[in-house]
Amino acid sequence: MADVHPGRRLRPHIKAHKCTGLAAELEAAGHTSFTCATPREILGMISAGVGNDFLLANETVDPHRLEALAEAQEHALITVAIDSEETLSAAERAGIKNILIDVNVGLPRCGCDPKDAGRLADSARIRGMTVRGVMGYEGHLMMVMDREEKRERVHQAMSVLASAHEDVGGDIVSAGGTGTYDMFAGTTVNEVQAGSYVLMDSQYAQLGHPFVQAMWVVGTVISSNERWSVVDVGLKSLGMDHGNPTVDNHQIWFCSDEHLTISPHDGTPRFKVGDRAFVTPAHIDPTMAMHEVAYVANQFGEILAEWPIDLRGW
Amino acid sequence: MADVHPGRRLRPHIKAHKCTGLAAELEAAGHTSFTCATPREILGMISAGVGNDFLLANETVDPHRLEALAEAQEHALITVAIDSEETLSAAERAGIKNILIDVNVGLPRCGCDPKDAGRLADSARIRGMTVRGVMGYEGHLMMVMDREEKRERVHQAMSVLASAHEDVGGDIVSAGGTGTYDMFAGTTVNEVQAGSYVLMDSQYAQLGHPFVQAMWVVGTVISSNERWSVVDVGLKSLGMDHGNPTVDNHQIWFCSDEHLTISPHDGTPRFKVGDRAFVTPAHIDPTMAMHEVAYVANQFGEILAEWPIDLRGW
Repeated sequence: MADVHPGRRLRPHIKAHKCTGLAAELEAAGHTSFTCATPREILGMISAGVGNDFLLANETVDPHRLEALAEAQEHALITVAIDSEETLSAAERAGIKNILIDVNVGLPRCGCDPKDAGRLADSARIRGMTVRGVMGYEGHLMMVMDREEKRERVHQAMSVLASAHEDVGGDIVSAGGTGTYDMFAGTTVNEVQAGSYVLMDSQYAQLGHPFVQAMWVVGTVISSNERWSVVDVGLKSLGMDHGNPTVDNHQIWFCSDEHLTISPHDGTPRFKVGDRAFVTPAHIDPTMAMHEVAYVANQFGEILAEWPIDLRGW
Repeated sequence: MADVHPGRRLRPHIKAHKCTGLAAELEAAGHTSFTCATPREILGMISAGVGNDFLLANETVDPHRLEALAEAQEHALITVAIDSEETLSAAERAGIKNILIDVNVGLPRCGCDPKDAGRLADSARIRGMTVRGVMGYEGHLMMVMDREEKRERVHQAMSVLASAHEDVGGDIVSAGGTGTYDMFAGTTVNEVQAGSYVLMDSQYAQLGHPFVQAMWVVGTVISSNERWSVVDVGLKSLGMDHGNPTVDNHQIWFCSDEHLTISPHDGTPRFKVGDRAFVTPAHIDPTMAMHEVAYVANQFGEILAEWPIDLRGW
């Protein structure tokens, strides 16, 4: 990713892993500006001394969290997304200096109507705030499988964002994710917010991108018979919104709170009680948020480091 | 529930909420024996001084966790489920004194073949361990909607368990959950492992049982327009394996990592930015496991207590 989007061309999204140990590796790869989904992610990154430029790519009206961000402005460049007068006012009251206009580019979620973007920017400037630019997340296009269709639709969405940017001004045109990271040539987008690419999951793997699975929930087989085996990895350790996890060479029967019932494909020896099983989550972001610590291992299974997943919670 | 299954007739399952503050309320209602899914749940209950009789209704071969449980045996009666020679040996090596035979009664998960139950009990007794009885979780029957069909199938499953109990001996015949709590008249089951009934969720609500929803994830509306509103409650704060959460008088569009997009039914006023929204999770157990604290409120929204969800993790 750093080859395609070096340095500040990428603003890696911290929400995918919530782990400052991993963020430090991204910094070592040349990225110093980061995207965050929660104030706690930004505050934790600053405490860990990783990065110097943070975008809260999400709306909040919480005065306490915004005030905490405002206090942190002396330690790092912090920019807060707003998409309404209410979110702008909340940021102003807390003392936030830099905002960015979040523009709806087709995903029905946050983001203002593109035609309101200029007005919100004017309102912010009247309040004495700095408007750094625009963002527009085309999340509805991440899993479009036909690459030409995807490119066309991403460019349509980014033309909406470019038009809003003309009304807004500022230096930043921020968009994108792992599913669209290579679709921005010929657009005005100048930073990409991808995050999942560092760890991947079984959903993003369907896209055939040059990123490899790097995170598994490692379980222990606790019960096994002629027909099925049970791994102690369940709903409390796996993001389930994208469906069941996968286990190489095995069929998934079902997942319960603390268990995964599986059976081997023909020719695969069945697991014995005590064996370790590598479970690949279908969705990386909520999975990481469920765990206290990540263990960094080499290809021989030796543990090289232990990274607290220290940006969890709210 | 305490009316139907008073005192030790109920062995409330702690995995549903992982919260010693709530468990203390169950103790005040007369229950002193508890079901747990993880060693950490048992150790945390003992640390909090709640309950005096704990069943690990789950298999583990982890020597460190089993040794910690063995050390805790001087503070409480601890019984560990086993379903194989391997799990029995692991318990023995760690110094566990009391075991219970987990019997498969139809759910393809843990639990030994019923015909092996007596042999495992004999093996435990030869090792000098106490065999307290049997358990058999009929999880595959929780959501059978026809009550007569459900009763017939539960009784079939419990006749398998009763037969295994004849081979095993011991005082305990443990089974059940919130979905089958009132199906045991005429069986030999003498304790019920229900847990979800205390908080409920939108899936169990379909059964029409006399338990009411008592837990919501309270979010804040952070974006709103003519067509939809966005609540800051997403995949990282909701168990999603049973599908989307619900919000009264609203249609759920979709749930993302940090967001829930919804629209009001006809006649319902639309949410404004800053409004609070009560989100009902589809599955209580994984939802509780995602949060650090539960706030106890009365019907006026006044906060009466703050309960750490202190039994999370492994």
